[in-house]
Amino acid sequence: MQDCIFCKIVNGEIPSKKVYEDGDTLAFLDINPANKGHTLVASKQHYEDIFSVDEEVLNKMMSVVKMLAEKIKNSLECDGINIIQNNGKHAGQLVNHIHFHIIPRFSGDKVIITYQRSQLSEEELNEIQKKLSEEEVKIQPLY
Amino acid sequence: MQDCIFCKIVNGEIPSKKVYEDGDTLAFLDINPANKGHTLVASKQHYEDIFSVDEEVLNKMMSVVKMLAEKIKNSLECDGINIIQNNGKHAGQLVNHIHFHIIPRFSGDKVIITYQRSQLSEEELNEIQKKLSEEEVKIQPLY
Repeated sequence: MQDCIFCKIVNGEIPSKKVYEDGDTLAFLDINPANKGHTLVASKQHYEDIFSVDEEVLNKMMSVVKMLAEKIKNSLECDGINIIQNNGKHAGQLVNHIHFHIIPRFSGDKVIITYQRSQLSEEELNEIQKKLSEEEVKIQPLY
Repeated sequence: MQDCIFCKIVNGEIPSKKVYEDGDTLAFLDINPANKGHTLVASKQHYEDIFSVDEEVLNKMMSVVKMLAEKIKNSLECDGINIIQNNGKHAGQLVNHIHFHIIPRFSGDKVIITYQRSQLSEEELNEIQKKLSEEEVKIQPLY
């Protein structure tokens, strides 16, 4: 997509530190990383977010995320890894082209992921449960 | 697994506000949510993290995450959604049974996901790129 920085990276118009590439996905180092090894996994085709991405492409991205998370853990000897995928400006999505962050964590680092935990009443929980359980869509079973 | 709170939820030993269930996955409301509608998607079988989970199960979980993210967006009218999957105590993983957080975001909410962005030198980036690009594993192409 025109004016999409990740499409430009995919097309080679903007250089990147690629760590993995195949027909569907591209993974490259975040140049202003949360920690060393902070990697982004993007689809090659332009999809804005998790709502619009093709499900097969999403699963493909996830397989790449898993493979790279293992590599990062083994080669950078980090203490943990966060996988983060943001959708929408209010969720901190800075580039409107679907991507996963793989953030290696090190004891005492400066990454903060926190929230104030709410106490919802039984009624409030029941109401949300009802909303989300309606019109149940079954995902294809594995076995 | 014995003493795993999510295995107990899957087995029905501990009650939960289920919003989706099939043979492989279970999704339920976080009872101390970051925001209303904060949902957890877990595998039914016990896997500790993204490193040990079966790839097919992981992809299945992701399809459920996508389906529920769409439902949450439509039914709770949130302004964005974070998908977070933590691996290891140092990454904030509180229950050692793989799960995804689906966190609906609302303008002005109290969720904080932030980090100090590092400036790595070209040499440091190249070194990491080299480590992560070695022994390249190709993921099965889609088409």
